[in-house]
Amino acid sequence: MPQSFMPNGSSTLTTNPFDDDKLREECGVFGIFGSPDATAHTALGLHALQHRGQEAAGITSLNGQEFTTRRVLGQVADNFTSQEVIDSLPGNSAIGHVRYSTTGETILRNCQPLFAEFSSGGFAVAHNGNLTNAAHLKKQLISRGSIFQSTSDTEVILHLIATSHFRGLMDRFVDALRQLEGAYSLVTLTREGLIGVRDPLGVRPLVLGKLDKAYIMCSETCALDIIGAEYVRDVEPGEVVIVTDEGIKSIKPFPETKPRPCIFEHVYFARPDSFMDSLSVYDVRKRIGAELARENTVDADLVIPVPDSGTPAAIGFAQESGIPFELGIIRNHYVGRTFIEPSDQIRHFGVKLKHNANKWFIEGKKIVLVDDSIVRGTTSLKIVNMMREAGAAEVHMRIASPPTAHSCFYGVDTPERSKLLAGRMDVDAMCEYIKADSLSFLSIDGLYRAVNHKDGRNNSCPAHCDACFTGDYPTFLTDQSEEEEKANQLNLIASTGS
Amino acid sequence: MPQSFMPNGSSTLTTNPFDDDKLREECGVFGIFGSPDATAHTALGLHALQHRGQEAAGITSLNGQEFTTRRVLGQVADNFTSQEVIDSLPGNSAIGHVRYSTTGETILRNCQPLFAEFSSGGFAVAHNGNLTNAAHLKKQLISRGSIFQSTSDTEVILHLIATSHFRGLMDRFVDALRQLEGAYSLVTLTREGLIGVRDPLGVRPLVLGKLDKAYIMCSETCALDIIGAEYVRDVEPGEVVIVTDEGIKSIKPFPETKPRPCIFEHVYFARPDSFMDSLSVYDVRKRIGAELARENTVDADLVIPVPDSGTPAAIGFAQESGIPFELGIIRNHYVGRTFIEPSDQIRHFGVKLKHNANKWFIEGKKIVLVDDSIVRGTTSLKIVNMMREAGAAEVHMRIASPPTAHSCFYGVDTPERSKLLAGRMDVDAMCEYIKADSLSFLSIDGLYRAVNHKDGRNNSCPAHCDACFTGDYPTFLTDQSEEEEKANQLNLIASTGS
Amino acid sequence: MPQSFMPNGSSTLTTNPFDDDKLREECGVFGIFGSPDATAHTALGLHALQHRGQEAAGITSLNGQEFTTRRVLGQVADNFTSQEVIDSLPGNSAIGHVRYSTTGETILRNCQPLFAEFSSGGFAVAHNGNLTNAAHLKKQLISRGSIFQSTSDTEVILHLIATSHFRGLMDRFVDALRQLEGAYSLVTLTREGLIGVRDPLGVRPLVLGKLDKAYIMCSETCALDIIGAEYVRDVEPGEVVIVTDEGIKSIKPFPETKPRPCIFEHVYFARPDSFMDSLSVYDVRKRIGAELARENTVDADLVIPVPDSGTPAAIGFAQESGIPFELGIIRNHYVGRTFIEPSDQIRHFGVKLKHNANKWFIEGKKIVLVDDSIVRGTTSLKIVNMMREAGAAEVHMRIASPPTAHSCFYGVDTPERSKLLAGRMDVDAMCEYIKADSLSFLSIDGLYRAVNHKDGRNNSCPAHCDACFTGDYPTFLTDQSEEEEKANQLNLIASTGS
Amino acid sequence: MPQSFMPNGSSTLTTNPFDDDKLREECGVFGIFGSPDATAHTALGLHALQHRGQEAAGITSLNGQEFTTRRVLGQVADNFTSQEVIDSLPGNSAIGHVRYSTTGETILRNCQPLFAEFSSGGFAVAHNGNLTNAAHLKKQLISRGSIFQSTSDTEVILHLIATSHFRGLMDRFVDALRQLEGAYSLVTLTREGLIGVRDPLGVRPLVLGKLDKAYIMCSETCALDIIGAEYVRDVEPGEVVIVTDEGIKSIKPFPETKPRPCIFEHVYFARPDSFMDSLSVYDVRKRIGAELARENTVDADLVIPVPDSGTPAAIGFAQESGIPFELGIIRNHYVGRTFIEPSDQIRHFGVKLKHNANKWFIEGKKIVLVDDSIVRGTTSLKIVNMMREAGAAEVHMRIASPPTAHSCFYGVDTPERSKLLAGRMDVDAMCEYIKADSLSFLSIDGLYRAVNHKDGRNNSCPAHCDACFTGDYPTFLTDQSEEEEKANQLNLIASTGS
Repeated sequence: MPQSFMPNGSSTLTTNPFDDDKLREECGVFGIFGSPDATAHTALGLHALQHRGQEAAGITSLNGQEFTTRRVLGQVADNFTSQEVIDSLPGNSAIGHVRYSTTGETILRNCQPLFAEFSSGGFAVAHNGNLTNAAHLKKQLISRGSIFQSTSDTEVILHLIATSHFRGLMDRFVDALRQLEGAYSLVTLTREGLIGVRDPLGVRPLVLGKLDKAYIMCSETCALDIIGAEYVRDVEPGEVVIVTDEGIKSIKPFPETKPRPCIFEHVYFARPDSFMDSLSVYDVRKRIGAELARENTVDADLVIPVPDSGTPAAIGFAQESGIPFELGIIRNHYVGRTFIEPSDQIRHFGVKLKHNANKWFIEGKKIVLVDDSIVRGTTSLKIVNMMREAGAAEVHMRIASPPTAHSCFYGVDTPERSKLLAGRMDVDAMCEYIKADSLSFLSIDGLYRAVNHKDGRNNSCPAHCDACFTGDYPTFLTDQSEEEEKANQLNLIASTGS
Repeated sequence: MPQSFMPNGSSTLTTNPFDDDKLREECGVFGIFGSPDATAHTALGLHALQHRGQEAAGITSLNGQEFTTRRVLGQVADNFTSQEVIDSLPGNSAIGHVRYSTTGETILRNCQPLFAEFSSGGFAVAHNGNLTNAAHLKKQLISRGSIFQSTSDTEVILHLIATSHFRGLMDRFVDALRQLEGAYSLVTLTREGLIGVRDPLGVRPLVLGKLDKAYIMCSETCALDIIGAEYVRDVEPGEVVIVTDEGIKSIKPFPETKPRPCIFEHVYFARPDSFMDSLSVYDVRKRIGAELARENTVDADLVIPVPDSGTPAAIGFAQESGIPFELGIIRNHYVGRTFIEPSDQIRHFGVKLKHNANKWFIEGKKIVLVDDSIVRGTTSLKIVNMMREAGAAEVHMRIASPPTAHSCFYGVDTPERSKLLAGRMDVDAMCEYIKADSLSFLSIDGLYRAVNHKDGRNNSCPAHCDACFTGDYPTFLTDQSEEEEKANQLNLIASTGS
Repeated sequence: MPQSFMPNGSSTLTTNPFDDDKLREECGVFGIFGSPDATAHTALGLHALQHRGQEAAGITSLNGQEFTTRRVLGQVADNFTSQEVIDSLPGNSAIGHVRYSTTGETILRNCQPLFAEFSSGGFAVAHNGNLTNAAHLKKQLISRGSIFQSTSDTEVILHLIATSHFRGLMDRFVDALRQLEGAYSLVTLTREGLIGVRDPLGVRPLVLGKLDKAYIMCSETCALDIIGAEYVRDVEPGEVVIVTDEGIKSIKPFPETKPRPCIFEHVYFARPDSFMDSLSVYDVRKRIGAELARENTVDADLVIPVPDSGTPAAIGFAQESGIPFELGIIRNHYVGRTFIEPSDQIRHFGVKLKHNANKWFIEGKKIVLVDDSIVRGTTSLKIVNMMREAGAAEVHMRIASPPTAHSCFYGVDTPERSKLLAGRMDVDAMCEYIKADSLSFLSIDGLYRAVNHKDGRNNSCPAHCDACFTGDYPTFLTDQSEEEEKANQLNLIASTGS
Repeated sequence: MPQSFMPNGSSTLTTNPFDDDKLREECGVFGIFGSPDATAHTALGLHALQHRGQEAAGITSLNGQEFTTRRVLGQVADNFTSQEVIDSLPGNSAIGHVRYSTTGETILRNCQPLFAEFSSGGFAVAHNGNLTNAAHLKKQLISRGSIFQSTSDTEVILHLIATSHFRGLMDRFVDALRQLEGAYSLVTLTREGLIGVRDPLGVRPLVLGKLDKAYIMCSETCALDIIGAEYVRDVEPGEVVIVTDEGIKSIKPFPETKPRPCIFEHVYFARPDSFMDSLSVYDVRKRIGAELARENTVDADLVIPVPDSGTPAAIGFAQESGIPFELGIIRNHYVGRTFIEPSDQIRHFGVKLKHNANKWFIEGKKIVLVDDSIVRGTTSLKIVNMMREAGAAEVHMRIASPPTAHSCFYGVDTPERSKLLAGRMDVDAMCEYIKADSLSFLSIDGLYRAVNHKDGRNNSCPAHCDACFTGDYPTFLTDQSEEEEKANQLNLIASTGS
């Protein structure tokens, strides 16, 4: 692990490590300019975006000339809502960040916003996404004399700005952006104003809102709703939006490309009350459920959502199929953040800590279980088993997306391919593995239809990034390639040597 | 405030004080005898009962001769699941308690289980309910030389046992029970075994379960499910169940009475996956929704539950009325435990911290909102307003219970009558207050029908305690009467004097 | 270990467990009546008494009718000096307590002041000393229905008052006191006033002071100095001093006895700036050093104190003998409170964590080391060794008290007799054990001479409790006798059986 | 205040802010190479150096290729002595740092050791001293693209290395050192070995020791004693000592200069059991006391040290003058680390929290008080007053150094000149201010005599840095000059404008 002259943070704050079988969005961002309550609004916005990252949160505010930053391990509601904290982050503009991260990396020095004092002025940044050439750039920067403080790819951006040969801060920033490869939606704060950037493909979302005279840029519209702000429009892929005292302006410093926003945001990441790509996420999920019902008819007594993410698709499924929708699995809302190092006796009960079967309704019934996706399959296995123990006559699993067979390199925490159930086996084997009576996934065309592409996926020019389903990555993967090349060379040497 | 020679605990751990508009069950209990994993099972059981009390938790285990107790402010999952803690509570039997308490009283010395070392042996107790003559008994006990350590009514039971003129511990315990008035479901642990008690009216629930050779007594069946135990039966009102190495036996030391279990458990307190009075709580709630739809027809486009407690009734309402069920309000699952002393700017956003309207579906629609009850009305007002801001054409509020017009003295935290909306105004005024287009409550007969009393409430001999709706209290209220008498005397003196 | 219905405290706060080789006073008390700054004065007084107990501290204040208590594990300066804490303990009178306790018992529920609400009113008490019949009384009280919350002997006093057959609180208190055996200096607070009590033998100290209109009673005069109060006189053995709004009065409810104040207070416990039995503690210690020099002449180059407790005796020794006094051992003032569970590598360095030899002065010299006492001998061995490693030519150990060969049952933490070096071997063997060139202790007569009894100890009627040196205990030891009797019976049974 | 992308630490950990009237050494350093117990030895060494910095501590260990760092606010004994912590810092070599810092800056990101991963390898550094051109260099580095994470001058060294045009790490390091101005004793750790550096003037100390095969470099010899290591020699001014697996070597990369080690180390900073410049610190202080007695005779009854730093000089004074040495002021050893935000009532008692007069000895006596130095004079005033209240007939203050009239820029925390009592007034006025009967300081020549320069100070070529007494600074003060110039220009503009 890289070392730094920064304090070590705790790495114990993880959520239910023995039970999480979902892909995880790694970040959410929020920025506001021109509000007397900038910090409170940012805290509220981050709270609404908490589902995009639950392990760390941070806010940088700007009071005229002075930046103030507070970053913590933990959730927004627990750390950023007291009067004392709000008052400690003064100013009319602020940016914020929520973060999920893989175990071992949840340390404070990787938390955002990051800040640097350049000769051209102070600069704070919050980043949602992942750069696919960060390691490559970092190596170059270190060889030229840059000292890195974190293992975060975001710090690369700061050093690119610091060492740029351009003059003004804005030119240096654009110079830095042009060297990046991968996915990034950024909000940044300088003494001049708030800047929002979405990468040329627009992989991760970023929306623009307005509240009185203040402008907001944030990951999802639900963060606008909570503060009563109006949704203006999506920041466009490849767009740089600059908000200053003079008003708002927009530049497009990148060569034009066909956008490829992430389709999985619709399936699982985004909150159902958000709008994304001009669509209601909840409505898309219901339509996914309807597509699923059409693609895979089943003779059953009840449609049961795997709570809570499967619920909208289950409602859509039930409405399309006419099979009654029932809450057959009851969720315990008190499953905390912690369960740190649970005892063996506790760990043994796994899925039951979160869910219980509603026996009365299940006993003797043929049921359709609707879930959004299958990652490792461990939870699906337990849920199917729970239904059988509750007396279900038949258990038919329906998944509201295609098989997740490939890793994401754009800011989503995915297990290695070898741990993805769909990376290891075909649908029949998966059905057997989870011990369901039948298992069906939504087709990739069905998914595109649900997000308003009537003819399904245009394979020659797909409208979304769907790499996790198709393996079709829309950017170079420089770091990944260099690593593989290095591994190959080692293998070559090893095999030559033997 | 009474003072004690015990350490003061913190009183800051409250859940969203600015946003809670629900009645709160004050406690849940769990006891197990004869399990090699007694403490882990108790922790899991309490976790499943966490909805009955979120502010404090405690477990006492018994390892042959030695009792060990651990009590904390906070939730079970955060405090009782590590191997270290499980190992620190050794033994084959254990009892546990979760607790909610009113602000200012959340101090550790009021937490349970309580323990006393009598000359007749050690005795631990966990209590769900509330005694209505505790103050009266306490005064007598102090005058005879007892020293109280807590403000908890449960401590009265310990001192009654300690000072009883009977000989054996069991006889002393029964002697103590006979002096109690009010509601109590108890689990106690002695060196002989586990004892469960339900008061003669059976106001609060208590069920009996079995896992291999171990017996369990706990508040709800969901706590049996989580450990895979079998539900045997309810402990009967007035029954004392004793589990020892010799097996299980039952005595009924009280004069026979007609039971009056709390009907509000069905409406709100119990978990929907529990069985109560031999009924599925989820099914009762769906039938309540159906009754509600039958009693108050409405012309609407959507049925929307107020999440999460209104959901089963909303499903029942939708199925009965044929109006589609939709998730029109999205809940933020990250509303933490804390929000301690939120800033004014944060507090201002009130209900939005927890809920957001699903605008796409609401705009232009006539909607039926289904909630379980109205307490102060503050949340209802905000929710109706949220629907209007999201563009609802009409908002019809339907409540899955009769108006809550009276305080509970049996272990439920109720505001003073003057703060209950239904204690202050009639239904029309309430409708106007919450700014709905229409407002209807379920009738008391409709509620009884939903819990399987086809002819509604038998007013001469009601089958449940329904005092919060009817003001018909099934026991004397000794402490309440003595306080009122005292107040009257003071008033008399005051008015005579003037 | 007895169990209670009280929260468990932490038991980790101990001071250098691997290095403490001193007897420890178990408590200090302070009480004040009639001061607008009662709590601040109590905090300051306890701070001055911190050497009498470093592990826990507590204050109870009385504001007219209401008592407030705060008890913590830790030191006064760290817990009772902020404005917030001072303000949280309002009132014109207060009592406080500092406590040392043996490992495993340092739990909050044993901390003081203890408080009880009697039918005759509220009562707080802080206790320095130890009752020798507490277990005996406790057993009786439990059999009559009292419930104990702590393992502290002080709680016995509360239950004796609560169950007394007398009427007024004062009569009940005296009734309780008359049943006590052992050592106790008490300060208590009731709604009527402040009461100070010293047991008939006056084993532990208690002094009376005055500051403007306020009266103070506390363990040592240094606690008067810190708040600028005037020292009035010692509370007399067997005296009960009562301070109320009406003024101060004194009663003597016990049969007259010859006092036996603890002589070890002069040797080690009391602060050198205190007056005790009308003598300057520093001056007594210097005179002890002079006696020591007279009793045991030695040919040496330097007199070196074992810091810090040996310093006054070393100065006296140097002045009497004419051998120069030098700081040959330098103390590290940063040896904290903690060193909790030190690693083996750290533990290995033992005495060096606290002390270092001043080599320059020691090399090649014949030195006299002066220490106050030897308990286990482990530190003496290390110090002698440290001197040899620093090059000392000869090391002569001189101890400013007689050999400590017996346990104390009056409020001093002593190891079992078998762990006292002087309980296991004679002076020659001790000298060999600690590897000194010579070892001498002060004679018991020399010690009495230093505390102003010119003819030494009057063996037929000694003026002090000196049981730790002589084994001559001035009270019955009821609990001790009953335990031994029980052990003997068990042995009898065992030997008969075999 | 400069901002960074690093987490903010707490700034509340200060020691008795209302009572500290001493200059404070800002740091101590320790490094070891080739010991199986490197981390434990470093922890022990830092513990012995705790007097050089009590607010923060840190250790970096190196286990073959991997560096591990732990830094905390707080003391060594409380944070670095458990087996768990020792085990978390694996390796055969380690460096450590203790730190004092001015209020507002005590934040974790300024704590040391600092670490950077260069292209030429990992590099950890701990620094005692202060650079007088750090701001100047930092500005240049930022303009070239370096990003600073801390406000510590030490980080400048890292960036100078990172951006050096030389190739190997050692050459880059020397290149960096040559650009530094001011005082620095450094220990650094690379994958090749341990490097110790002392600036050309040798302002701050650094000594070399040996334990079996391991080499140690640290601030004072007392840190060698605690681990049983042998003192080899002082690292020479301008020397770079390199310890690797190949052994130890030394280079001198700077132009030769006459050394000027800090003379105040002898007066106050160093521990009395250390050797410094080949002299026993304790012996020097006794000789200072003797010089003081010779320079300023006084007719008195007692010599009383102001504890604890005045004690050796007082012993020397007493031995020289023949006036008896007595402990007239008793120190309370429990004055904690905290007293954070003390209440007004507590603050009021100021010096009494730490000290009490030993009245018995003082009453009616003419006393000589011996202290090491006077900074602001606030404590001296209180101590003199305390002596008068205890009944002293005359109070003669003798100071074991010349008047401290100038700020230190070499790593000692000094108040601004205007707050130094000797910066504001002459000796007579100072005597009046502290209300003593007489006041004398040691002459600068007397001080030099005591440190073995028989002829006193050689004014044309002084052997020590004595700038705090003389204002004769041995280096340029670039940052100070640039600031003054800037201030002058502003004044010029202001006065021209008016």
